[in-house]
Amino acid sequence: PNRYLSSLPTTVFTVMSQLAVKHDAINLGQGFPDTEGPADIIAVAAEALKDNRNQYAPLTGLPELRDAVAASNQRFYGLEIDPATEVVVTSGATEALAACLMAVVEAGDEVVLIEPLYDTYLPMLKLIGAVPKCVRLQPPHWKLPEEELRAAFGPKTKAMILNSPMNPAGKVFSRAELDLIADLVREHDAYVVCDEVYEHLTFHVKHIPLMTLPGMRERCMRIGSAGKSFSLTGWKVGYVTAPAALASVIAKAHQVMVFATAPNLQRAVAHGLNKDDSYYQGLSDDLELRRDLLRDGLHRLGFETLPADGSYFIVADITRHAQGRTDVEFAKWLVEHAGVATIPVSAFYDPDGSAAPQNLIRFAFCKKPEILEEALRRLEKAL
Amino acid sequence: PNRYLSSLPTTVFTVMSQLAVKHDAINLGQGFPDTEGPADIIAVAAEALKDNRNQYAPLTGLPELRDAVAASNQRFYGLEIDPATEVVVTSGATEALAACLMAVVEAGDEVVLIEPLYDTYLPMLKLIGAVPKCVRLQPPHWKLPEEELRAAFGPKTKAMILNSPMNPAGKVFSRAELDLIADLVREHDAYVVCDEVYEHLTFHVKHIPLMTLPGMRERCMRIGSAGKSFSLTGWKVGYVTAPAALASVIAKAHQVMVFATAPNLQRAVAHGLNKDDSYYQGLSDDLELRRDLLRDGLHRLGFETLPADGSYFIVADITRHAQGRTDVEFAKWLVEHAGVATIPVSAFYDPDGSAAPQNLIRFAFCKKPEILEEALRRLEKAL
Ligand SMILES: CSCCC(=O)C(=O)O
Ligand SMILES: CSCCC(=O)C(=O)O
Repeated sequence: PNRYLSSLPTTVFTVMSQLAVKHDAINLGQGFPDTEGPADIIAVAAEALKDNRNQYAPLTGLPELRDAVAASNQRFYGLEIDPATEVVVTSGATEALAACLMAVVEAGDEVVLIEPLYDTYLPMLKLIGAVPKCVRLQPPHWKLPEEELRAAFGPKTKAMILNSPMNPAGKVFSRAELDLIADLVREHDAYVVCDEVYEHLTFHVKHIPLMTLPGMRERCMRIGSAGKSFSLTGWKVGYVTAPAALASVIAKAHQVMVFATAPNLQRAVAHGLNKDDSYYQGLSDDLELRRDLLRDGLHRLGFETLPADGSYFIVADITRHAQGRTDVEFAKWLVEHAGVATIPVSAFYDPDGSAAPQNLIRFAFCKKPEILEEALRRLEKAL
Repeated sequence: PNRYLSSLPTTVFTVMSQLAVKHDAINLGQGFPDTEGPADIIAVAAEALKDNRNQYAPLTGLPELRDAVAASNQRFYGLEIDPATEVVVTSGATEALAACLMAVVEAGDEVVLIEPLYDTYLPMLKLIGAVPKCVRLQPPHWKLPEEELRAAFGPKTKAMILNSPMNPAGKVFSRAELDLIADLVREHDAYVVCDEVYEHLTFHVKHIPLMTLPGMRERCMRIGSAGKSFSLTGWKVGYVTAPAALASVIAKAHQVMVFATAPNLQRAVAHGLNKDDSYYQGLSDDLELRRDLLRDGLHRLGFETLPADGSYFIVADITRHAQGRTDVEFAKWLVEHAGVATIPVSAFYDPDGSAAPQNLIRFAFCKKPEILEEALRRLEKAL
């Protein structure tokens, strides 16, 4: 078997979710809501099964979903997107990411990444044979270090992956940071895979797609996720917005990897994207309350937390409670002894890079308030 | 952008389907049924949206679907499959194929293929950097040439892709042919990706999974497709049955490429797989009638056809009617002037190999009898 894939550990999300089940723990590990998405979207998905459209969808997605993706780009960010040539629907954002990377990166190319990073970025790059160049955000404020970032770019840089709002850090990149990134990208004639699956989940901080910055329209591939925007993570419907010249290559990668996505789910997601602003506002307001609840509770328990302005996640510093244990050891201890599953943040660093911080764990707060409260009670009892 | 992907033409299925729409043609090109799958399966998919299970499914699939896949292997082929470790659910058979190839093939490895072949096999292998070794079936009986096959295997052979029942040829490999293949595979210590998506679509010819032959259980990755078994090609639910040591690596590829598949569709497919024998018998009986209808009609029009004992497809020799046109030219002429879309069979040969036959076109007969009859009338009028 393929040596690299064989050596790859099972994703930490699966490992921790399995431990959560085993210990009957509250699962604040894997990032998925414990409530369902909007009933009307689910009803559309059910109805859409019944009118004879269950055969192959077009390769790049149903026209109604591509239209809705384009309209949503216009409405939220003022981006003019041609639904016919600049949108590719994928089977989730993970596939979108793989397709974008396959579209622009070849063996030997360098790709700039920001750590801590989502756990499929590096494996996908290694499968392609690309060379990752990682830059680390600096706790306690998740600062983007300008000099390190500058140094990560070079003559072999082909692309960057930018995840904002960011998992696991909960960071939303500022306009100043994006300006710096855009400068470097232009200077090195690079592409950017913009993983913006949490675009609608920010808390009184504006999400700015890098694609809206000068010179970035032709270089960015912007990835969105119905799972995250509509709290239906299982549906695995994603979408890429990219200039036509790139979108056509992304579509080729999609053709070889998956080909198409279930029509009924696509139609329901199109319905979802057309929801009015109050839906999106409600989504982030609701999540913000949960972030606050968990964050304040963690503070009361003596954990310091890092800024979390977007996404499902907040990272806590375990130093005060860990008694010398690493984040991995502490997370295992928590699931067993407190009945609360989290994710050790060291899992989000390049295993071949220099030592990752071992004092941080990630909590998902996309859970019911009463569940978050029960988790805090359990933590209090155990600590 | 990636040079290989950029150079890849849009899949011939999309091209011909678009031409079909443009010319208001009957689409006997892309292989999808023009009737819906069983109403009860669709009803389960709709119901399954409504009980709070729309978040991430497990990486390798829902337990109920893995159980159903294992049970179906036992029932149809006597294969003992452990649902916990030997089944991986994927987002369609295309993804399954990609994941299996990524799991066992590395850059530089040789892979044996049989032409004419399905159109994602070669691109996926090229993306991996593998070296394809193609063997051609010989018209007019789609004979597998033993010496050529033997010669295609060598010290660098890592795997073979075996598609039976076969698209586009409609061939179902015989026990004698499978014995020969099994001998060569054992001798060269190779793996086999068994694309058996048409396993239940055979016409009075028994489909024998290569995996059931001596020594093959540990080497074969057997791919099935809900789209094909339940006439719901848009759902994109596939499944791989493989020995645990391979299944775990396939799951890693799936983790990086897509991660999971919609739970409601998985549950509906589990329900489908558990249908009784009369369903499967009805499916193939029904399709056989359509094959007969189209084949006999083509014969009346003066086309010779090649044997088609399984799949959705029958290949016709156009020599008598083509007036010197190639298959590509003739297929374009047919869609424009007869209003019938087909697929030129040369699209199923390695573009870098020696000249493909140019006298064959593929018809899909998975269409309503009245549609097939109308297509025949149109052909008669145009020719
Ligand atoms: C694809 S499972 C992981 C879900 C997620 O985005 C996370 O927990 O970080
Ligand atoms: C994935 S579109 C192609 C459908 C099909 O299997 C075929 O027409 O050969």
